[in-house]
Amino acid sequence: MTMPSDLDISRETVTLPLSDIAERCGIPASLTEPYGRFAAKVSLDAVAALSQRPRGKYVVVTAITPTPLGEGKTTVTVGLGQGLNHIGKRAAIAIRQPSMGPTFGIKGGAAGGGYAQVVPMETINLHLTGDMHAVTAAHNLLAAMIDNHLHKGNSLGIDPHSVTWRRVLDVNDRDLRDIVTGLGSRADGTPRQTGFDITAASEVMAILALSTSLADLRNRLGRIVIGFTADGAAVTAEDLKAAGAMCVILRDALNPNLMQTVEGTPAFVHCGPFGNIAHGNSSIVADLIGLRSADYLVTEAGFGADMGAERFFNIKCRASGLTPDAAVLVATVRGLKAHSGRYRIVAGRPLPPELLAENPGDVEAGADNLRRQIANVRRHGVSPVVAVNAFDTDHDSEHRVIADIAAAEGAHVAISSHFTRGGKGAAELAEAVVAACDEPGRFTPLYPDEASLTDKVETVAREIYGADGVDFAPAAAKRLAAYESGGYGRLPVCIAKTHLSLSHDPALKGAPTGWRLPVREARLSAGAGFVYLVCGDMRTMPGLSSAPAAERIDIDEQGRVVGLS
Amino acid sequence: MTMPSDLDISRETVTLPLSDIAERCGIPASLTEPYGRFAAKVSLDAVAALSQRPRGKYVVVTAITPTPLGEGKTTVTVGLGQGLNHIGKRAAIAIRQPSMGPTFGIKGGAAGGGYAQVVPMETINLHLTGDMHAVTAAHNLLAAMIDNHLHKGNSLGIDPHSVTWRRVLDVNDRDLRDIVTGLGSRADGTPRQTGFDITAASEVMAILALSTSLADLRNRLGRIVIGFTADGAAVTAEDLKAAGAMCVILRDALNPNLMQTVEGTPAFVHCGPFGNIAHGNSSIVADLIGLRSADYLVTEAGFGADMGAERFFNIKCRASGLTPDAAVLVATVRGLKAHSGRYRIVAGRPLPPELLAENPGDVEAGADNLRRQIANVRRHGVSPVVAVNAFDTDHDSEHRVIADIAAAEGAHVAISSHFTRGGKGAAELAEAVVAACDEPGRFTPLYPDEASLTDKVETVAREIYGADGVDFAPAAAKRLAAYESGGYGRLPVCIAKTHLSLSHDPALKGAPTGWRLPVREARLSAGAGFVYLVCGDMRTMPGLSSAPAAERIDIDEQGRVVGLS
Repeated sequence: MTMPSDLDISRETVTLPLSDIAERCGIPASLTEPYGRFAAKVSLDAVAALSQRPRGKYVVVTAITPTPLGEGKTTVTVGLGQGLNHIGKRAAIAIRQPSMGPTFGIKGGAAGGGYAQVVPMETINLHLTGDMHAVTAAHNLLAAMIDNHLHKGNSLGIDPHSVTWRRVLDVNDRDLRDIVTGLGSRADGTPRQTGFDITAASEVMAILALSTSLADLRNRLGRIVIGFTADGAAVTAEDLKAAGAMCVILRDALNPNLMQTVEGTPAFVHCGPFGNIAHGNSSIVADLIGLRSADYLVTEAGFGADMGAERFFNIKCRASGLTPDAAVLVATVRGLKAHSGRYRIVAGRPLPPELLAENPGDVEAGADNLRRQIANVRRHGVSPVVAVNAFDTDHDSEHRVIADIAAAEGAHVAISSHFTRGGKGAAELAEAVVAACDEPGRFTPLYPDEASLTDKVETVAREIYGADGVDFAPAAAKRLAAYESGGYGRLPVCIAKTHLSLSHDPALKGAPTGWRLPVREARLSAGAGFVYLVCGDMRTMPGLSSAPAAERIDIDEQGRVVGLS
Repeated sequence: MTMPSDLDISRETVTLPLSDIAERCGIPASLTEPYGRFAAKVSLDAVAALSQRPRGKYVVVTAITPTPLGEGKTTVTVGLGQGLNHIGKRAAIAIRQPSMGPTFGIKGGAAGGGYAQVVPMETINLHLTGDMHAVTAAHNLLAAMIDNHLHKGNSLGIDPHSVTWRRVLDVNDRDLRDIVTGLGSRADGTPRQTGFDITAASEVMAILALSTSLADLRNRLGRIVIGFTADGAAVTAEDLKAAGAMCVILRDALNPNLMQTVEGTPAFVHCGPFGNIAHGNSSIVADLIGLRSADYLVTEAGFGADMGAERFFNIKCRASGLTPDAAVLVATVRGLKAHSGRYRIVAGRPLPPELLAENPGDVEAGADNLRRQIANVRRHGVSPVVAVNAFDTDHDSEHRVIADIAAAEGAHVAISSHFTRGGKGAAELAEAVVAACDEPGRFTPLYPDEASLTDKVETVAREIYGADGVDFAPAAAKRLAAYESGGYGRLPVCIAKTHLSLSHDPALKGAPTGWRLPVREARLSAGAGFVYLVCGDMRTMPGLSSAPAAERIDIDEQGRVVGLS
């Protein structure tokens, strides 16, 4: 059987009116605003309006440590939502909004795929309702007000060299990483070395995703620290009188977007913070509404369980007060084979052919990664469900190895063929998730607020990553001490490391042991409410390849989009 | 009587459902898509769907040479539309989308004012339906693809020093005017001197405003010239394979936005190209639809009749093939007094009190500007209607001076108090416009396509500005010759000079004589389809003031926007 392309499937889907989708969620029409035919904004008043309905089960989708191709978490999230509806449960999903930069770069879109995607692809992968653009605008207004403040006499006494607030754009543009601004004449500002990040890396994006109300958003924006005075006092967006205008720019963007999957499952698509320097999860407000809209809300966390899920548990749930009922761990045969260390997978290049040959031994050889990630979920008191994202090239013997490992670890497990068969193909997974949610669980964060920042980092490194310990660079240790004494010690930590290994080194596959985590730098996201630790090179502005996807994207004679994938 | 603030008027307006507004325009519901409660996108299919309806009268609103405060063209446009409906005609208006940068800078919003504004103010002044952001994204994708091309081996042989394509953001940020990009390591691009303009100054914005269809948009984007090879051959967006993706990013943005005025008059709000380096007019597609939606379409052209209206006649009408039936020339008492040369008006500062004293002599002393602008309209074969935008501080004797001058020049004239009284206050103006439209007119462009570029500039300078001639800097003359030989000689010209004088010198008030226009530089907007000439310093990226409007903009406890004006 040849599968039609994602774009063809998207295009041939007969979508339901969004008012029907909202009605299925129990959201009154007065609380939705259509944005075009295929997306609607849901007012945050829906949280109060739906408060009498029972809270649904809260299911987070995470993964083993992925290959550069990803394990297919988004397709599983979509497929599981459809699968739950297929077996007669009412389910909705919550995913992140794709970033436009990568859509025109190497990656293509990020709306799921096959018969497990959010539609239409053109809407979700392009502007959607403009939230990304609002983040860009709010972020850059603050940047302009900082430089304007310096230019107009600097009455707050900001040390220009301490300014950490850069600018952002939702485009893959390596030439903007390191720039000098303020050149020209005296009327053209103050020369300063700075740069642009991609919009998803903006602290404003993390703030939007972690806010629980408009008032909370306003306060978090005010708490953003942009730099310091010569005396070392933090300078905030509130000090610059920028937070109010930023909040006005973001007012509509705080309302989650409602879309639908190819099978009409309600899909909340909202926010897309980075998965390394930020927490990599979709918004809290979408989950708050989604949990009252369905019996099961399936929400996705970025990267592997050591990354997105750890932040889901310790940053997002801490901010929302919500507790998860189950965690789905997505694994693929090729992903586990890659963890054997015997293959090299490069994004944009064909898979090594030998990876596709039947080889249950290689799956077993990479299985420690799966075991560790199962333990990571369980460490937080949550029931793990291993979802094998099945490919046509898989072999039954390879699936059996994964099922046996999961069973040995006491985890639920199911093979899922949602990509080729939609919700029907995820029915077994849906049953496993229902069973996991019915188990008694007791959600437990990894560390208390009171633990010191360094202790929090040590705990994540040892208990989740499997490190022997942490080596803080002197500058990082000094910063952490300053944050403690500056009153930021109760914040959770967000460790920015590669997502391609449990360790900081992408070459270390499986579940590496006998290593220590080197923390090069510590930075503060005071508005978002976490301290982040940089381990290795973190790229916050992607570049384009020699043949970017943009070159193949166009309109056809009928004005339809072609070349999106 | 104390007027409520613009924001209070906007907030207290009971808006009609946009479906009612579309219905009033005869636009089928299937051709509109709501974007939130207060704006809808109208499909370009409406042009064909409405083609059986008679074409309405086409009225352009322009002005005398304005003071830095503006003459109130937008309020007249809104008020006239309302006034025509008040006297029983069916009218719609078309205006530009305000830029978000200035909204947070000194200017505040640009939705009209008083009882002649487009509502709600928060919608039109902020993101609206995201068109500005789409322009930003499309423009910057091309910029990224240029630098990526240079980084990946430069197979087209682009001379990096010839690249004129900068980047854009919709923010007032002087520090971005002159920057160096591509610093850092070898992986971070190629160091280059460049900068950012405000989004309204993007050629993409001009292209969007001048396109007549999606296919036309696609072709214009492909024709954008970003720089030259070492051999002097033009390098286009098509050469870089960027135009298709840019068109996809702009696909929805090409559809005009439908809103309404405080009195429920349909308002098409679409595109906002700069009024100096670009043509400063709202979109052609909005006019194409608007003209079939009403008996009168009132459309606004930026700055004075020597600027926006001249480009309306010679750039916009040339591209659309439409012919105007009347031109409204907005004048104020204070504006004409300022043209006496006896007052100095500075934006953001209080008016000189002596300007408000009764002084018909000063009005007469400045009247040559009005006479020249009446002649400028008539030079194009269009009936002029002088609209006196009345202020509470005006005196009858002063209004009489203007009326007498208009009558002596054979122009229609009316005093309009739309700001305080809405459509009722513009009834007299509406009657004058109806009369002007009924006169036989014969629209005549200023110059034929076949005239040389230098002749076109000479013609505008002599016949419209009243210059004795033009002095081309050697570099400009060389460029114009190159454009002629490169096949761009048939394009119209867009002269970028100050809008505060008929001449290139903002200090020369009234209708200056005995001067020559110095053309410093010539540049090509091949996609938009004009050559522009730079006379003096043209700022394409504004800065913020010491106390930007952003500092006063916030949300209140009810989550409503405060501080917008």
